[in-house]
Amino acid sequence: MSLELIAQNKSFAGWHKQYRHVSRTLGCDMRFAIFLPPQANDGPVPVVYWLSGLTCSDENFMQKAGAHQLAAELGLAIVAPDTSPRGSDGLDNAGNPIADDDSYDLGQGAGFYVDATQPPWNDHYHMYSYVVSELPQLIASHFPVSDKKALMGHSMGGHGAITIGLKNAQHYTSVSAFSPISNPMNCPWGEKAFSHYLGNNRDDWKAYDSCELMSAIEDASGYPPLWVDQGLADNFLTEQLKPEALQRAAEKVNYPLTLQQHDGYDHSYYFIASFIAQQLRFHAQYLR
Amino acid sequence: MSLELIAQNKSFAGWHKQYRHVSRTLGCDMRFAIFLPPQANDGPVPVVYWLSGLTCSDENFMQKAGAHQLAAELGLAIVAPDTSPRGSDGLDNAGNPIADDDSYDLGQGAGFYVDATQPPWNDHYHMYSYVVSELPQLIASHFPVSDKKALMGHSMGGHGAITIGLKNAQHYTSVSAFSPISNPMNCPWGEKAFSHYLGNNRDDWKAYDSCELMSAIEDASGYPPLWVDQGLADNFLTEQLKPEALQRAAEKVNYPLTLQQHDGYDHSYYFIASFIAQQLRFHAQYLR
Repeated sequence: MSLELIAQNKSFAGWHKQYRHVSRTLGCDMRFAIFLPPQANDGPVPVVYWLSGLTCSDENFMQKAGAHQLAAELGLAIVAPDTSPRGSDGLDNAGNPIADDDSYDLGQGAGFYVDATQPPWNDHYHMYSYVVSELPQLIASHFPVSDKKALMGHSMGGHGAITIGLKNAQHYTSVSAFSPISNPMNCPWGEKAFSHYLGNNRDDWKAYDSCELMSAIEDASGYPPLWVDQGLADNFLTEQLKPEALQRAAEKVNYPLTLQQHDGYDHSYYFIASFIAQQLRFHAQYLR
Repeated sequence: MSLELIAQNKSFAGWHKQYRHVSRTLGCDMRFAIFLPPQANDGPVPVVYWLSGLTCSDENFMQKAGAHQLAAELGLAIVAPDTSPRGSDGLDNAGNPIADDDSYDLGQGAGFYVDATQPPWNDHYHMYSYVVSELPQLIASHFPVSDKKALMGHSMGGHGAITIGLKNAQHYTSVSAFSPISNPMNCPWGEKAFSHYLGNNRDDWKAYDSCELMSAIEDASGYPPLWVDQGLADNFLTEQLKPEALQRAAEKVNYPLTLQQHDGYDHSYYFIASFIAQQLRFHAQYLR
């Protein structure tokens, strides 16, 4: 597993770096970004994985979230993968095109952190396995990181962070999300993506629905604590995000969920930047 | 002078807003962004004007600099204009095209904060007068701002901030820059822009060259203090930026210049974000 450095920028005495690598899981070239705090010069540091939302790449969070300052202070690495397979110029390593769609909420930039089972998506769209297995192995083998990991994400990536955290509870100390798609089985974004990636049997969708996964928990005591920030002026709140469904599921099984709702804030990175420090401090207490 | 609100986002308990307006100075529609700190709800706040670099619009600084957190804490508004006339779809309000060039360092996105004297640029390229006069009048008439103003900028915008500050010393409490084009008369970016905008008589260029303007000062005591941050891994340092020329000019006339050089940092917004807090604190002490 070799890495090709694409770019690097010193940032808050640490380093932001972008890499390209051949992903066996996705069958194509992939890019990711990593922030390494200055403490990484002296020994292993814990890692927070950030999963981005629809249309994003490895760049949005690193450029817009304003997370480097506190990550450098707390000694946290942050890894941001892309949001779908993309390959090089849309081709995989055999020269075959990676499936895509003209709409912003399906195909490239919209992998939804699932392992697709339906053609044409099942050739490359295995973002769940990429984020759960290949990417952390790659990071552990190339960077000075400890085995402590946390998960964060925004919108589609908030859905990714919560579902991956619930399905791999022992791997993550803590999980957080901004404006997550909390109940994708019951919203237009999720129904569209799941029907294409997973087929029309809605029972198959439950394996990737935060509310379904949480409701099925018998004893929440072994699960990572969950923190969610939600803006109340978010245009997608009622139709797509549905934090109240997640809250009901959490109450039902006594899941350790902190849901913070913020008057006037929208779905943008300005909202994320405003509260990223709180989420990083939340993770830091468990990652130490 | 009316404003059209294009977008707004709550950010750190303040507001980021984008507006469109008809500029008389430039003869076309223009956009700018403003950050209003929460203190603006209670009364007038001072304003820091940010001038961006080549290729940028009103958006880059607001999205990438991570400045809102401290501006909200210090009670500073920040205004970021575009970097050239652009109009609407490249047309002015009479439907005539705004001059442009295929290269990134001339024409739209590259106004260089001068009043052009040469055709075709002299029809709309009056960014100097726009930033010095029309924009502050517009801001003062529409927002709760005090008459205290400071200037910051990056690269081409650093050149803009320093030259505008030196030519209008009484208007600004303080000036700062990241990686400014310090001596545009003697670098490729500046020579190209000035020859097109101002003509081939190099004597005419001196009115927009920080080193020339500073060297001509007889008594620096009435001038705004100047702070400059420069990354030492900046690809443009030697050929385009030349901070040592500015430092020599400042020493010659005892100009109050603080030049901070930073090992390993480049020309990107990661560098700006890393040191924006220092520059905002520098301005805050004079703006209070």
